[in-house]
Amino acid sequence: MQKKSRRARPSRTARKPAGPPRRNAFYAQSGGVSAVINASACGVIETAMKHPRHIGKLYAGRHGIIGALTEDLIDVSRESAATIRGLKTTPAGAFGSARFKLKGIEQNRAEYERLIEVFRAHDIGYFFYNGGNDSMDTALKVSQIGESLGYPITCVGVPKTVDNDLPITDCCPGFGSVAKYVAVSTREAALDVASMARTSTKVFVLEVMGRHAGWIAAAGGLAGLKPQDPPHLILFPEIPFEKQKFLDRVKQCVTDYGYCVIVVSEGAAYPDGKFLADAGTKDAFGHTQLGGVGPMVANMVREAHGYKYHWAVADYLQRAARHIASQVDVEHAYAVGKAAVELAVKGINAVMPTIVRKSSKPYRWTIGHAPLSEIANVEKKLPRNYITEDGFGITQECRRYLLPLIGGEAYPPYKDGLPDYVHIKGVPVKRKLTTDFKV
Amino acid sequence: MQKKSRRARPSRTARKPAGPPRRNAFYAQSGGVSAVINASACGVIETAMKHPRHIGKLYAGRHGIIGALTEDLIDVSRESAATIRGLKTTPAGAFGSARFKLKGIEQNRAEYERLIEVFRAHDIGYFFYNGGNDSMDTALKVSQIGESLGYPITCVGVPKTVDNDLPITDCCPGFGSVAKYVAVSTREAALDVASMARTSTKVFVLEVMGRHAGWIAAAGGLAGLKPQDPPHLILFPEIPFEKQKFLDRVKQCVTDYGYCVIVVSEGAAYPDGKFLADAGTKDAFGHTQLGGVGPMVANMVREAHGYKYHWAVADYLQRAARHIASQVDVEHAYAVGKAAVELAVKGINAVMPTIVRKSSKPYRWTIGHAPLSEIANVEKKLPRNYITEDGFGITQECRRYLLPLIGGEAYPPYKDGLPDYVHIKGVPVKRKLTTDFKV
Repeated sequence: MQKKSRRARPSRTARKPAGPPRRNAFYAQSGGVSAVINASACGVIETAMKHPRHIGKLYAGRHGIIGALTEDLIDVSRESAATIRGLKTTPAGAFGSARFKLKGIEQNRAEYERLIEVFRAHDIGYFFYNGGNDSMDTALKVSQIGESLGYPITCVGVPKTVDNDLPITDCCPGFGSVAKYVAVSTREAALDVASMARTSTKVFVLEVMGRHAGWIAAAGGLAGLKPQDPPHLILFPEIPFEKQKFLDRVKQCVTDYGYCVIVVSEGAAYPDGKFLADAGTKDAFGHTQLGGVGPMVANMVREAHGYKYHWAVADYLQRAARHIASQVDVEHAYAVGKAAVELAVKGINAVMPTIVRKSSKPYRWTIGHAPLSEIANVEKKLPRNYITEDGFGITQECRRYLLPLIGGEAYPPYKDGLPDYVHIKGVPVKRKLTTDFKV
Repeated sequence: MQKKSRRARPSRTARKPAGPPRRNAFYAQSGGVSAVINASACGVIETAMKHPRHIGKLYAGRHGIIGALTEDLIDVSRESAATIRGLKTTPAGAFGSARFKLKGIEQNRAEYERLIEVFRAHDIGYFFYNGGNDSMDTALKVSQIGESLGYPITCVGVPKTVDNDLPITDCCPGFGSVAKYVAVSTREAALDVASMARTSTKVFVLEVMGRHAGWIAAAGGLAGLKPQDPPHLILFPEIPFEKQKFLDRVKQCVTDYGYCVIVVSEGAAYPDGKFLADAGTKDAFGHTQLGGVGPMVANMVREAHGYKYHWAVADYLQRAARHIASQVDVEHAYAVGKAAVELAVKGINAVMPTIVRKSSKPYRWTIGHAPLSEIANVEKKLPRNYITEDGFGITQECRRYLLPLIGGEAYPPYKDGLPDYVHIKGVPVKRKLTTDFKV
């Protein structure tokens, strides 16, 4: 009997097996999205369906935790198998994400009581939260409501952040693909600049994400193989920006190579900690400057040396670029989603699956897990030995770390020349509460 | 005998066949580069090697026409067959391009006399010039030196421009790939914004190239299929920008869909013709504003409505993006290079191969040719019936025109997670002149 029910698909009418009671599960996407967060969703959903003894229905929050607070739940079982499979090749947050950080239980008990009210109404016993630093903090808080508010729940974080700044895990799903995008784009744009430099653009600046950690900027360094290859200079948040030293290096590059390619992290900052982008510059109407750090650095170079410049700001293009996703990253993303469910059905609470590197060359990895309490609110910056002594490049150690993460191409399917991304139907679960909740 | 020599590889010692004398050829890349200009180079080179009866050596100008003026010629025969083949999958200008427009023969006879001096020294009888509008003007002028200065030369232009603004030809090699990049990127970034809009970014602006014609901006319109799909608004250079009308539409979009995605051409302009990017804004030090039209439009929206925004400026990333090149575009690019040589060896002077569309669905095309005199300095703008009546979108006619051009994926080979682009050795041809020429 038990064997049979293990193979049955989840259904509200299935007879409950012996053992821990079957309960429903909640999955939500949180924070800035990535090219592969939906691949994690796919891992969670497909694996949950393989555990009908423990997991009944799987509900997704529409726009993350907000969907839970407002009882706006999506019935994942109403999506076709093709749509679920298609999540693996679709960027951004198919269920909607949110930037919403729960306060501590002491500070805002009402939010937690509301969560419990919604969870109880829908018999939710599993909570999967797919996000980065802040999100793991939220997941940790939710994992504690069993103990502090008497509502039993198994809460597992699913790592996701293009910033690659979560501790313990070797890397974060989402990062490998943005790293690949930045490395590829830097290599391509650099070829363009090299072609034109004789009579036109001599300096090119690419602004990339990473407000506090330079992992994404470092990935730009993969574009070159030899010391003279572009990018010639990388500006990391971890290295205080020294204007004169930088300008001297730009001039040297143009003299030596005819051009200079610069990758700058949005988090590049002066020695006093002030962001370069926070230059306090105003436009003619007294409004704060429009540009980011990319145009600001390009302009700095032009003022000092008069070189013709171009700049690009990749912004969302870099983290949504599923068309050039890393195969390894997609596999990581799926694997942590799968592992999260497997941990949860074993009753392991307040953890997050991690990527464990077993070797770099050849690249071998496995999945581990770590307590949320050791992950929440800890930020992993680029180690100093990953940055060259002069502060403008990446070392061989860094290259050895990064290279496996951009490995392999995981092209999405195309239709009429465009990636054929899926859209969920998003059928809402019938509400059971009559109360509303303002977020 | 004749048959045998037709099959022989070009060689300085090969006996000359009867017929027009065999002469050397010059190839140069000109103006802004693209993802597929090297595919045209590949077409020229591989085809020239098939015509040893007419074409002896093929020399490439290092940095375009400047290479001819300074007698800095690259011996293409010193490149391996693998490198030549690899040009088909390598973006930007492998031989170096230049922004350099020859003046008229009357205004700067010295430049033409210098060209003839170099051509004569190296027995150059064929001139292949790979570029856009300005370049076809240069090619036309060079084609006239036979008649006006008594130096016999066969001159054929090879079309290349991401701007897609050459007349007569149905489209321009280089455009299809940038169009594909912009359509894909718009679709991807729009999914990101849609995920986040509930609590974060509501307006996203993508700035694309096209200073005078809105072809590239129009390609962003391919990202959506239904009227409510993003991009919600496109700002074309062809449609005078009306600020209030635009701001009203942005607000309507955010109200109706929760967010608004905008694609803006760098050439978007006010009714008086002034570029939006030329807003005369200054930073705190009195310098001209740093940003382009993307950040400027985003800021305009924030000031009017207070929406949280993001913006991206793709800049060189878009035109160098060989990783997402259109298969059709690559085929066009190769075909015009091949056709240029075939026209030249027939002795047809002062022409440019064109792409002739035979049907849109299914897409069928062939190669024609047109006189350079009808192409040089004529700019093909987006026809009014390609833009919706309200001026903010593309019509079905436009979609029917654009869609075939982004068809098919022509992925480059990868090595260690990165595209494996080729680099030429660039062996210089031994100089024969003792005079220098300042450009």
